[in-house]
Formats: sequence, structure tokens, C-alpha cells
Amino acid sequence: MTTAAVGETGWPLTTRRRLLESAMRLFGQYSFAGTSLQMIADDLDLTKAAIYYHFRTRDQLLIALMEPILTEIGAVVENAERQRNTRARAEVMVDGYADIVTRNRALAAVTTFDPSVRCVLRNQPEWSAIIERQLSLLAGASSSGPGSINAAVVMTGLAGGASTAPPELDNDTLRAQLIAAGRRTLGLPEPSPHR
Amino acid sequence: MTTAAVGETGWPLTTRRRLLESAMRLFGQYSFAGTSLQMIADDLDLTKAAIYYHFRTRDQLLIALMEPILTEIGAVVENAERQRNTRARAEVMVDGYADIVTRNRALAAVTTFDPSVRCVLRNQPEWSAIIERQLSLLAGASSSGPGSINAAVVMTGLAGGASTAPPELDNDTLRAQLIAAGRRTLGLPEPSPHR
Repeated sequence: MTTAAVGETGWPLTTRRRLLESAMRLFGQYSFAGTSLQMIADDLDLTKAAIYYHFRTRDQLLIALMEPILTEIGAVVENAERQRNTRARAEVMVDGYADIVTRNRALAAVTTFDPSVRCVLRNQPEWSAIIERQLSLLAGASSSGPGSINAAVVMTGLAGGASTAPPELDNDTLRAQLIAAGRRTLGLPEPSPHR
Repeated sequence: MTTAAVGETGWPLTTRRRLLESAMRLFGQYSFAGTSLQMIADDLDLTKAAIYYHFRTRDQLLIALMEPILTEIGAVVENAERQRNTRARAEVMVDGYADIVTRNRALAAVTTFDPSVRCVLRNQPEWSAIIERQLSLLAGASSSGPGSINAAVVMTGLAGGASTAPPELDNDTLRAQLIAAGRRTLGLPEPSPHR
């Protein structure tokens, strides 16, 4: 929404996109807490004032960066919750999450692992609620033991698998391997090869 | 080794331990890159000079913090490599790693996820080699697909499961759940209940 509105003026969209791309690269390298707005400005040869035009705080920049992926996770969560039984709900959640982290390999790691990012997320009740629903969907399917540990293993493990995958591994192969790994972890049947 | 030598003088060991404990807590909250030596000094009401007496750089502090867990991983890797076949090697590696992250829940997350920590580790050839051998042991066991993705899922997933486990969950239960999850992910048989 915001992107489209800003984009109407022409150049701000491009600068905004460059800011987000630089931020993602630097967050992935130095972590969110270790990246200052000044470092992003230096990376892009911009002044800090130019950054402030787009994002008043570093938290706002982080939220803008994560909003698309969190929105996608929210859509998968809603689809999963509409399924008829626990197993189908977990399958839809695993498959959808594997797809999202495959297409957002760098961002997946920042969103899932960075402790300073988790602090910011905790202060965003809307996004925290989505993550909680995602974990519940994954936890409900566990064939053995309390499901919350299995859910955490799948959520961090798929993000870890995606973010450390060799860049030359294509999305279809990576997605299929992550889906298979996530389903095995939860004791779900592997997807049929005919799908 | 260093700890024992310093400990002979009495108080430095205690200060050193307090420094390491404060660092672990702050790294877990703000990430390694987001934690300055000044923040650790403030946390402990120490001067920066007192910190410099123990650790000349932040990297040295990080390495001292991680050395025990990396040494433990190295011991498991060596034991795993002595097993007769791929499957036994992977089982020993999964079980040993699950045990280590269970007993080092906070440190597991810092070691595995923090991008700024990974940068420091990459410059430590000795430790990087251990991690590579760990990943090879886990990758060799995969029942399907190239094993490197499965290995990364297990390594990050078990650390994620341990670091987000409820503090009241006891070590024996957590360890058993992580072993079961890790083995399922790699397509290995679950451990016998008689063990």
C-alpha cells in the first residue's frame, strides 16, 4: 500500500527500494542491532536526511522490510486454518512457509533468527499474533510429544535451510526439499510426487 | 585452560565469569554486533579498563564464550566419525548435538543464528572446520535428496527448538524431543525407548 502511494511520485520508490535492499543485506551481515542508519546511508552514498525522508526510525525501516513476508505468512495461516483437520492444517502451513522462505532466503534468516529483530516484532501485536498462529498450526500436527518444540524446530530449521542454501540451488528444488524435511520433522506424510 | 590459569589468582576468575555471563545475555538480546564492550561494562558496573584486563577485543570475548560449546561439538564430531556407517555417524551427531544445545539453550541461539557471530567464526579456521564436519555427518544420513539442506535444517532447527523452549521444560524432556525431531528430519529411526 505504502509502496504504491510513494511510487506515484517516481523517484522515491526507487530510493525506497534501494534503502530496503541495502538494509536487508547489512542486517543479514551485521544483524539489525549492529546496523546503523549511517551505515545504510554510507552504503548507498546518501545523506542521513535522505533516509529520514523515507523512514523516521530504524524500526520503521525494519517493519517495512518485513511487512511483505509477514503478510504472506498471514495469508498462509488463514488458508491453513480453513482446512478441515489438524493434519491438513499443518501440511498447508509447512508447504506455504517453505515456499515463502525459499523465495526470501536472506530475509527469512533476518526475520527468524536475529534477536534484535525479535525484540521489535514483539512490540508489534499484529505480527506477533500471526507468528503465534503459525506455531500453533505446526504444533497441532506433531505425531509425538508436546508439539511446541517440533513447531519451533520446523520454523527455525526451514529458515536456516533456506538461508544457507547454495545460491545456485533453484527455488523448485529447494522448496521441495524444505517441504519434505518439514513434513518429516512433524511426522506428516511426504507430498505425493504427482502434485 | 585459560580459565584455570586465571582462576588461580582468585578474583579474576569470578570477574571473567560475570563478564561472560553478561555478554551472553546481551548478545542474545541485542546480537553480538549490537552489543558494545561499554554496554557490558555498564551492565556489570565495571570500567572498560576492567574488561580490557580480561579481553582485549569483543571478538576475544565472543570466542571465549563459544569455546566450551565448540569444544563439546568437536568431541561429538570425533566420536561420530569413528562409527562404522553413515547412519550410525548421523545418529551419534544428532544425539550429541541435541544434548549440547539442550544444556546451552541461550548460547546455542547466539552461536547458530547471529550473523555477526558467523562472521567471526568464519575467521577461525579451527572452528569452521568442526562445523563443516558436523554438517557433513548430518548430511550423509539423509534418506532423500541432497543432504546439505537437511543438515542445515537439523542444525538450525535444534538450536531454535532449544533456545525458544519454555524455561520450565526440563533438560531430559527437551533433549529427548530434540533427538526425536532431528532423527525424523533426517529419516533416521527414532531412538529405542529402552536406551
